[in-house]
Amino acid sequence: MTKGTYLFAPVFLFVLFQGCAVFASSSEGQMQDLRVNAQRLEERIAVLAKFGMNAHGGLDRVAFSDADIQGREYLVSLMEEAGLDVHIDEAGNIIGRRIGRKSDLPPIMFGSHSDTVPDGGKYDGALGVLGAIECAQVLEENNIQTRHPLEVVVFTDEEGGLVGSRALTGILAPEALEVVSHSGKTVRQGIIDLGGDPEMLDNVTRKEGDIKAFLEIHIEQGKILETKGIDIGIVEGIVGISWWDVIIEGFSNHAGTTPMDMRQDALLAASHLVIAVNRVVTSVPGRQVGTVGRIKAEPGAPNVIPGKVVMSLELRDLSGEKIQSLYEKIETEAQAIARQTGTRISFSPIDAMAIPAPTDPQIRKYIDESAKGLGLSTLFMPSGAGHDAQDMAKIAPTGMVFIPSIGGISHSPKEYSRPEDIKNGVNVLLHTILKIDKNSMD
Amino acid sequence: MTKGTYLFAPVFLFVLFQGCAVFASSSEGQMQDLRVNAQRLEERIAVLAKFGMNAHGGLDRVAFSDADIQGREYLVSLMEEAGLDVHIDEAGNIIGRRIGRKSDLPPIMFGSHSDTVPDGGKYDGALGVLGAIECAQVLEENNIQTRHPLEVVVFTDEEGGLVGSRALTGILAPEALEVVSHSGKTVRQGIIDLGGDPEMLDNVTRKEGDIKAFLEIHIEQGKILETKGIDIGIVEGIVGISWWDVIIEGFSNHAGTTPMDMRQDALLAASHLVIAVNRVVTSVPGRQVGTVGRIKAEPGAPNVIPGKVVMSLELRDLSGEKIQSLYEKIETEAQAIARQTGTRISFSPIDAMAIPAPTDPQIRKYIDESAKGLGLSTLFMPSGAGHDAQDMAKIAPTGMVFIPSIGGISHSPKEYSRPEDIKNGVNVLLHTILKIDKNSMD
Repeated sequence: MTKGTYLFAPVFLFVLFQGCAVFASSSEGQMQDLRVNAQRLEERIAVLAKFGMNAHGGLDRVAFSDADIQGREYLVSLMEEAGLDVHIDEAGNIIGRRIGRKSDLPPIMFGSHSDTVPDGGKYDGALGVLGAIECAQVLEENNIQTRHPLEVVVFTDEEGGLVGSRALTGILAPEALEVVSHSGKTVRQGIIDLGGDPEMLDNVTRKEGDIKAFLEIHIEQGKILETKGIDIGIVEGIVGISWWDVIIEGFSNHAGTTPMDMRQDALLAASHLVIAVNRVVTSVPGRQVGTVGRIKAEPGAPNVIPGKVVMSLELRDLSGEKIQSLYEKIETEAQAIARQTGTRISFSPIDAMAIPAPTDPQIRKYIDESAKGLGLSTLFMPSGAGHDAQDMAKIAPTGMVFIPSIGGISHSPKEYSRPEDIKNGVNVLLHTILKIDKNSMD
Repeated sequence: MTKGTYLFAPVFLFVLFQGCAVFASSSEGQMQDLRVNAQRLEERIAVLAKFGMNAHGGLDRVAFSDADIQGREYLVSLMEEAGLDVHIDEAGNIIGRRIGRKSDLPPIMFGSHSDTVPDGGKYDGALGVLGAIECAQVLEENNIQTRHPLEVVVFTDEEGGLVGSRALTGILAPEALEVVSHSGKTVRQGIIDLGGDPEMLDNVTRKEGDIKAFLEIHIEQGKILETKGIDIGIVEGIVGISWWDVIIEGFSNHAGTTPMDMRQDALLAASHLVIAVNRVVTSVPGRQVGTVGRIKAEPGAPNVIPGKVVMSLELRDLSGEKIQSLYEKIETEAQAIARQTGTRISFSPIDAMAIPAPTDPQIRKYIDESAKGLGLSTLFMPSGAGHDAQDMAKIAPTGMVFIPSIGGISHSPKEYSRPEDIKNGVNVLLHTILKIDKNSMD
């Protein structure tokens, strides 16, 4: 092979020269005109959606299922078609690498996940991986070699708890391997079935500095962009999420024989608290949200005054301090309600779902410039939902691009994003990659 | 047998004479001094409680169970000991008859039921039947013969839907026979097992005028008497009960990605409505009650804004018009809440549990006079719970005596009434029977 290398040295030099020439000859204007192939992307979204589609058009491509595995094989074929050097890491993540002109530079990584929730939609995750592959392919087709290596990533089991990105960033808890996923398999078995090796997860861990930048494009999963008529959302960070179980204890009694003024009605107290949560969360400026999504009154009969209510409380914000401050206000209101209603109210924190994960300010700026350069409107906004990017933000400068999702619907067969918005978003992703590659000082 | 009658005629005449003599010789003062045997009554409450007692002291003497049948056999033996002529009617009701001096007068009937709810208490129903037997026995022991015949009644399956009293008053729906009771038997089979005949229920029907008066003594099942330190409750009527299913429809959405001002949160709307129910019901004078005892938020996950809430609404009052008026106010408030919260709120009436059943004003007066004559304090009050008396009130002047129930607890192993209160209540029952018998014009 050494011999062969010499034998083909002139060819190699020619190719190298030609690559440099193409890059060198790409004027600023030519680069700015670079666009993804929107029609190909739409077709691929439709093809990927066939893997796991159920009778009413929902996607049951849950992680580790046959549909997930077959969908991933399709993605591998596309990555190879895009000229990527594809391998599956020990966590089951699919990684397609494209060499850079400076091989010692850390890679720019971009991608998302291809698994869905049960009865999910065609765009959540799928847009992020197919958009990433499209960016790689359009660079390949235009013979553009970036300075940094590029890595397109398809993360394992995002919907089941960010499994792949947690493994990649070294924060996957050992017990997460034992969780039984929607596929019916444990995560451990699922990783094996994807071609990974759960005993060797240390091999996949990247440290701070190992990755130049991480980028993810995703549907918004809310309807802010659609409602405001904005093309591109620039994610300021993935919000932190805190959960509590709230227990309201009153006194259960006969609804017929207990006068109104002798009641300690736990549901009446809980109702005041649900309203207080809404009032506190909306009483300060910002985009924080607070939700009571689950409630249970006991004993739960129409003719019995509820003696106990258990309900959930969820608070989300980009700032952990703000979450804490809102919680303290709600707790204070709860104690006042307890006094007024003759009940006891207590809060039990549930393991925090996530701490806030801010994105990188410089990358936000690149996304904004890329969008503006494409004539698109932008909005800086938090991501209220969790994404692999929140893990990646712990070890690498991270950016996220949102596109409008009609009606804000996600995790549903009704999930839909317009082809125009998809094209815009992936073009923004492409140009952000190029800006990071070009403008960084390394 | 005709011959025998003549043979014993002198004996018969002597007995008749002696009976009259005793009654005639009972001065007003002597009659007023008549008291039930409180110790015997307490002992019998303890014995009856052994039938169906479970490991933690609760009573599982549900209708038609072996414990129910054995408890009824015990009651029959007591009724016979009290000199009553006992039979079981076609609905399974036990009826013990005592002849009156004027055999053509309609009987004064008193009693209650001996079945319990699952894991019930020792007093609900049991007090009413044992107290009634005690009244009959003390009359027998004192050779007091009333003008009217007396009938002590133990109604079938009160807790399962007032089965015995509905049959007796001709309002038992045919489909009620097919209901599977807590015993696991259908009501039809249960009645057969009690010695009744579900094909011949027409035989048990009494019409208006057939019964002089009906009386029932019961524990209050609330804690008004205990709290106020009152000895005797004089029931003004059994409240009407109306139920609705209330459906609140908002829009289910992602709790993280949907800003507070873009939500149509069905649980937030429901909370406002729970508070409105309380406010409307307490906004007018009276003893009406309104309860939301059951609530379900869908989909019911901490991280999803509830799109739908189904909850119960129950209103009770002695006046059907008042129930309707309260409902209309609540409905009006609901529509305002719906507008403010971007939800839809609808009410589906559930088959009314009961229409209001007022007691007889003259009997209330007799109960009050009897209590005062015994040096007891009284309170006129509604019965918020249902009783056999509510059926009987449809065909006969009816009265109900309440005694204090500690903590207002009922349908529970913790149900308890003090011996002093039991003695007082049954003495009031006894003297009310005598007043009705003496003072009526027939």
